[in-house]
Formats: sequence, C-alpha cells, structure tokens
Amino acid sequence: MDENQNVVISQKSSMVDVGDKNITKRIAKASCYIHFPEQVFQMLRQNDFLTHKGSIINTSIIAGLMAAKKTSDILPLCHPLQLTGTNLDITPEENKIRIECTVKCDGKTGVEMEALTGASVAALCIYDMCKAFSHDLEITDLKLNYKKGGKSDYGG
Amino acid sequence: MDENQNVVISQKSSMVDVGDKNITKRIAKASCYIHFPEQVFQMLRQNDFLTHKGSIINTSIIAGLMAAKKTSDILPLCHPLQLTGTNLDITPEENKIRIECTVKCDGKTGVEMEALTGASVAALCIYDMCKAFSHDLEITDLKLNYKKGGKSDYGG
Amino acid sequence: MDENQNVVISQKSSMVDVGDKNITKRIAKASCYIHFPEQVFQMLRQNDFLTHKGSIINTSIIAGLMAAKKTSDILPLCHPLQLTGTNLDITPEENKIRIECTVKCDGKTGVEMEALTGASVAALCIYDMCKAFSHDLEITDLKLNYKKGGKSDYGG
Amino acid sequence: MDENQNVVISQKSSMVDVGDKNITKRIAKASCYIHFPEQVFQMLRQNDFLTHKGSIINTSIIAGLMAAKKTSDILPLCHPLQLTGTNLDITPEENKIRIECTVKCDGKTGVEMEALTGASVAALCIYDMCKAFSHDLEITDLKLNYKKGGKSDYGG
Amino acid sequence: MDENQNVVISQKSSMVDVGDKNITKRIAKASCYIHFPEQVFQMLRQNDFLTHKGSIINTSIIAGLMAAKKTSDILPLCHPLQLTGTNLDITPEENKIRIECTVKCDGKTGVEMEALTGASVAALCIYDMCKAFSHDLEITDLKLNYKKGGKSDYGG
Amino acid sequence: MDENQNVVISQKSSMVDVGDKNITKRIAKASCYIHFPEQVFQMLRQNDFLTHKGSIINTSIIAGLMAAKKTSDILPLCHPLQLTGTNLDITPEENKIRIECTVKCDGKTGVEMEALTGASVAALCIYDMCKAFSHDLEITDLKLNYKKGGKSDYGG
Repeated sequence: MDENQNVVISQKSSMVDVGDKNITKRIAKASCYIHFPEQVFQMLRQNDFLTHKGSIINTSIIAGLMAAKKTSDILPLCHPLQLTGTNLDITPEENKIRIECTVKCDGKTGVEMEALTGASVAALCIYDMCKAFSHDLEITDLKLNYKKGGKSDYGG
Repeated sequence: MDENQNVVISQKSSMVDVGDKNITKRIAKASCYIHFPEQVFQMLRQNDFLTHKGSIINTSIIAGLMAAKKTSDILPLCHPLQLTGTNLDITPEENKIRIECTVKCDGKTGVEMEALTGASVAALCIYDMCKAFSHDLEITDLKLNYKKGGKSDYGG
Repeated sequence: MDENQNVVISQKSSMVDVGDKNITKRIAKASCYIHFPEQVFQMLRQNDFLTHKGSIINTSIIAGLMAAKKTSDILPLCHPLQLTGTNLDITPEENKIRIECTVKCDGKTGVEMEALTGASVAALCIYDMCKAFSHDLEITDLKLNYKKGGKSDYGG
Repeated sequence: MDENQNVVISQKSSMVDVGDKNITKRIAKASCYIHFPEQVFQMLRQNDFLTHKGSIINTSIIAGLMAAKKTSDILPLCHPLQLTGTNLDITPEENKIRIECTVKCDGKTGVEMEALTGASVAALCIYDMCKAFSHDLEITDLKLNYKKGGKSDYGG
Repeated sequence: MDENQNVVISQKSSMVDVGDKNITKRIAKASCYIHFPEQVFQMLRQNDFLTHKGSIINTSIIAGLMAAKKTSDILPLCHPLQLTGTNLDITPEENKIRIECTVKCDGKTGVEMEALTGASVAALCIYDMCKAFSHDLEITDLKLNYKKGGKSDYGG
Repeated sequence: MDENQNVVISQKSSMVDVGDKNITKRIAKASCYIHFPEQVFQMLRQNDFLTHKGSIINTSIIAGLMAAKKTSDILPLCHPLQLTGTNLDITPEENKIRIECTVKCDGKTGVEMEALTGASVAALCIYDMCKAFSHDLEITDLKLNYKKGGKSDYGG
C-alpha cells in the first residue's frame, strides 16, 4: 500500500477536506481496452471504424472529453476541479481497441478519477455504437498508468 | 454477429430513430470486477469494507443507481429513457469485488447501456474510495450478462 | 402509517421497481415558508420584493420550476418522470413568504418529491437573494399538502 | 440587517460581480430537521434506520454531498465554486432526525447556499425513503448556523 | 398569429399544463448559419474543416445531438421529453456553414425547441473551434423550418 | 485572421491544454436579436412583454444566466471556469428584442463562449415563450462584441 495506511475508518461518506493542500500541476493517464469478436472487428476495420451511428473514433473521443469534465457530478466523493486540458487516444489493435485518456489540472487534488472516467466512458460509447453487431463485447484493463503532481507519483 | 449486418455506414453521428419500435418491458444486467492487491483487500475485509471515506458498498451502490439515470446525458447517442427500476449488487470475492447492475424500463429501446454505465460507475466509485491505499487497482470484465425485451434476447 | 407497513428492510439502496404499476394522472402540491426579521421583510415589501439581485418572486418561481424537473437527478432513489405541468405560487404574508409548488405528471409513480423539491429550491433561491440583508432567515414547514393518482390519496 | 442596506434595487436578475473580492478560506454550516409521526419513528429506530429502500442515513449523506456540489446549477444566481470539503451529520433525536451540512471552499464568495442546499436535499432524500410509511413528515428549521471567511462572520 | 391569441397574460412563469393533450408523433426541423471571413473559410475548406481542435463537422454534430437532449434542462419552461431520434446536417456553403437539426418524439408537446437548441449549440460548437482564427464570426437565421404532429403544422 | 494561423490540424477532438497560461481577469460581451412579426410584437409590447407563460424579460434573463454557467457542459471542448459575474440586458427595439450577455471570470482562458451561450439561450427562451403566437420568429446576429484579458483583445 502506497500511503495513508493508518486512516480512521468511518461508516459515513464524506468529501474529504483538501483545503490545506497546495495547488500543484496535476496530470494523470488511464487506459482500457474494448474487445470484439473477430468477425465484428474485421468488419469495423474494413469500414474504417465507421458504423450506421457514425465514426466510432471521433464520437468516443468526444464522449470521453465530456465525461472527464462531469467526473465530480458522477462520482459522489470527487472534488470539482477546473481541468486545463484533456486528450483521448483511441488505437485499434488486434480484435480490440485501446483507449487512453490524459487529464491535466492545476489543483489541490489529483485527476486520476477524471482520467479513469474519461477512458471508461469513451469505451462505453464504442460499446453503444457497436452493440447492433454483437453483445459479445467486453471492456477490460481499466487502470491508471501514470499520475504526477501530488503527494506521491505513480507509473512513469 | 447477432443482427443488423447490412447497416449503411456513415461518417455522421446520429441518435438513430426508434420512433416506430414498440414499447416493451426491457431488462438488462451487466457486471464487472474491481481487483485489489491482496494486502489492500485483506485490510478492506477486516474493516467491513469501510474506509476513511465511508462504506464502499453503500456509496458505490448509490453512485451506480444515479449514473444509470444519467446514461443518456453521458453517452452521446443514447436515447433518454424513463427507468422503472434499478438495482446494484456488490459482492466481495477473493481479492476482488463483483459489481452487477440490473436496469428495467418500459421503452422503445433497450437498457443495456444503462446497466453497463451503472456497473462501470459503481466500480469507479470503489476505485475512488480505495485509491489512497493503492493505485494498483484494475476494473475488468465489464460486459452484458442478460437482456430481454427487444428484437433479440441475450444471455439467460 | 398509511401503507406498506410490512416492507422488508434492507442495507442496500435501490430504485424500487415500479414497472408493474399503471400509468395514471398524478398531481401533488407541497409548500413551505421562509421567515424574515421584521425589519428585512418591511424593506422587501417597500421595494415590491425587488433586491439588488432582481425580483425575488420571479426568480424563485423559475428556480422552483427548473428544480422540479431535476428531481430524479438530485434525489438518488427517485424515478425519472416526464412532468406535464408545474406551477409555483409565491405569497408574501406577515414577515414570511409562502411557497407552494404544484406538479402534474402521467406516470407510474407519484410526484410528491418533485413538488417538495420545487418548493424547497424556490425557498432556497429567496434565501440566496436576501442573505445580503440578514442571515437570520429560516425555511420551515416544508410538507406535502395534497397528492392524487396513486394507491392512496392524501390531503385535499 | 447585517450589511449592504443601501443596495440599489433592480427588476433584473443578475449573478453579482465578485471579481474584485479576495480568495479566502470559507466555511459554512447549515442544519434542518425532519419530523416523523411517533409510530413511524419508532419503527425506523427499531430497524436501525434501514428501510426497503436501504439505509436512510447513508443514502441521505450521499444525496447531500452531491447536492452541495450542484448548488450553482440549482440556484440561478449562485457562483460556481470549487468546494474543498463537504460533510453531513445525520443525528436521530426524539421523533425527528437532525441534518447538518458543513461545506468548505477557497473562494471569492461564501458557501452558505451550498451548506443550506446540502442539508435540504439530505432531508428530502430521507423524506423520499420514508414516504411509503407516512406522508405526515415535515422538514423544518432550515437555517445557517455558522459562516466564516467573508466580509462578516455569523454564528459561532 | 397562428393560434392562442386570447391567452391570459401573467406576471408569473409556469410550465404550462399539457396533461390533457394526446401523445402524437412529433417532428421538427430547425436551421441556422455560421458566417466566416473569406480567408478563414478558405483555410477551413483547404483543411477539410479540420482544425487544431479536431473535425468541425463531427464535433458539432455530437454537440447538437447532446444539446437537443438537454433542452428541458436549459430552457426553464420546456417539458422533459423522451426524444426518439435526432439528426444534424452540417453543410458548408460559400463562406458559411449551414446547420440543420431534426428531432423526433412521441409526446404531448412539440419538439421545436429541441430542434432549435440542437442547431444553435452545433453552431456555437463550430464557433468555439474556429475562434482562434477570427472572432468575426456570426450565427444567423436560426429558425424553425418545419414541424408536424401538434395542433397546427408549420412549413413543409 | 487574428492569431494562431499556423496551427497543426488534427482529425482528433481535444480540450486544448491551457495549463501554462496565466490567470487574468477576463470579460466578454455577446449579443443577438430575436425578430417578431409586427402584429406579435405589438401585442407583446401592449402586454408589457408578459405572456401566458410569464414575463419574457425576467425569464429569459434567468435562462441566460444559468446557461452561461453550463457552457462547459454544453460545448464539448470548452474548459470549466468559475465565472465571477454574469449579466443579461434584454432591450425591446422595433419588432425585435436585443439580448446582450456580459460574462466575467478570473481564468486561463476567455469567456467568449459563455457570453455567446448566455445570449443564445436567453433568445431561445424568448422563442419558447412566444411560439404559441407565431413560429415566424428568427434569431440573428449572434456575435461577440467585446473581449478583454487574453492574448488579444477584441472590439471595444
């Protein structure tokens, strides 16, 4: 465990007080994969990842960008933050698509959850655009790759 | 591929027209896992899954319930729906927690994305509540388990 | 107690299943008061309830109308509903203002919470517009006056 | 009246300009009560404040935390603020439950409305979870207990 | 004037009662233009309407689709509706781009405001993506082209 | 073209990184017109711009104020900002109403889109309140009048 091992447990949810932390430049990167049946993936690739609902890649990028901004509205205990930049990379691989979301902020708390939420929602958007072809889709490996700017860095 | 193989592809995103579909009772179930380092999981279990931010289980259930209702605001191409019921099951297993979200609706289109979004956000909420202990957390296996009420059923 | 006395209690939050209920015309009325120090109330009355932030009455009506529509986003266990009409009555009395909110809907579940939320937010809006004059303001007596269209009616 | 007695009244709503104020540490506490018929309250207490919709206490805390973050979206003239911490205390008393919400922020304007909104929505959430037992519930005494960090402090 | 000439005027905002109207298939189309300085437009056309912020056309379509769904949250007196389909057409013309939004719904009230809001927000999104090149941009001619399904049809 | 002519174009939407910009006082003003058939405008003027849905002027001001705060939720690539003040001016002229929105902020990026969104939504709100009288309404001339505080000023 990285830190904070001696926390006092509580029955009671709260948005923890970060008022005494310093404002620092924060960055976080998170990624996940969405897996497709081979036949579906080949069809998508032949069609340049366009479907009857439009471009998988363009649409999921925008879904991820907007979701990162909504993080504190979606996750009950997240602090509202003024993100200074967000970026999504959507990369087709073999029978899967990799999604990476990078979020930057000047703030008193990190942007890990914003990066994870952005990646997760971009993947859900791809699912939504492909579910007419198959429901045998799966989103996996959602994790933090990198964070910098807080008490402890991660990844690198 | 289940259905709709001959769709016309398009560069252009749209919220497809479901106006001529019938209103039917829809149900969908989706699930995922969040994995923990063994040491973190043992500490959580010893503390009845309470942290300094409150109860993981109670908080993530509410996060998932509320996110399912926000699905059409989060996913660009999803239709707004009047959900008639939503349920979250959060089950600790060995070094991981299973999240299942069940959504019901009377509507012209299915609630798969609502169930997937609910499960996904509940897992992100658990991540948020445990990230002080470790960032080696991973959300996996997000998938549809079951849907009923549309053109084709799935799972069972 | 009116009804449902033998409910099964649960540790687990859920948005209860109303899928098998009938769609009926629903109406609910809720009201509350906001109390002012006498000196503040007299000043407001002399100024026709206009402040440096605009008209208390017009602004709070709109705040209440919009909040009633947001109810299922604000209250975790409320079902999304398509309100068919909403109305706010703001009535100055002696050193207090009465707020009543009426909400109508065709739905499977009642609109009590929408009426209570609309009245409550209209009162909070008045508070916000008057807090420069005094913080000795108090919102009281928020209650349901009337509901019709469900298993049991109330008030009337 | 505390301050600003010579304000210029206006027909026109506006979000007043706070651009020239200093950023200071702000804190506010607000509270209210929800009253129950004796029979209902006893049943709730015997069931550890669990209902068929889950734990009243846990669920209302989260509702209040999330609502405090939504304040500037709910109240037309409130400025958006980056809350640094929020806390809800839910305390059963005799035939009533006391709700107190504490909000902290570094900002140019106070967080009174955030604390009042958090307390108010937590009480509405309790109402929603108990309305199956009785509609003779009432929310009262919503008021500011304390604020610090602006032009004038309040309470203590 | 088409209809309703003898309405009773009121100081008081309300979301008018549509509860007694029938549910019918509704459709509306609205359009507007965004004008560019010639030099900017030529540069955009040479770059296939791609900028440093991505594709103007793809991004504004999604902005419009999502805004149409948010209409009742943005416009105080609009009823919440379950849109069944939404479509945006973005067409470059000479030194301007035409935006048309089509919205469909089965409901008790029309979807004009949804179509107008979708077109308007798509145009604002294009503005946002091009404002680094010039602020001499102008959005004009936002109007309803067509509506069908209510008391009176329009256009066609 | 004002600036940034040598931008690298991209297929990919992003919320551009403003992290290295300075926080400065920002202000922007935007305006538009809504045009009415002469007969409708005369009726509105005779009724002091009150309709069956309330006061056009008061309601549209509040709609504009609230929309300015929602800008980063409505426009996919806009950064979230903490607005310090917002103001709407609604001025009836001959067969048209002029809407001007002024927005202020201390931030790393300008508030042009907030001012344009506020003006645009106020005009849409007027449309909504008058569409019962005629659909021959048109919103035009939406443009930036003034901005100050960034790399380059505009207007004056």
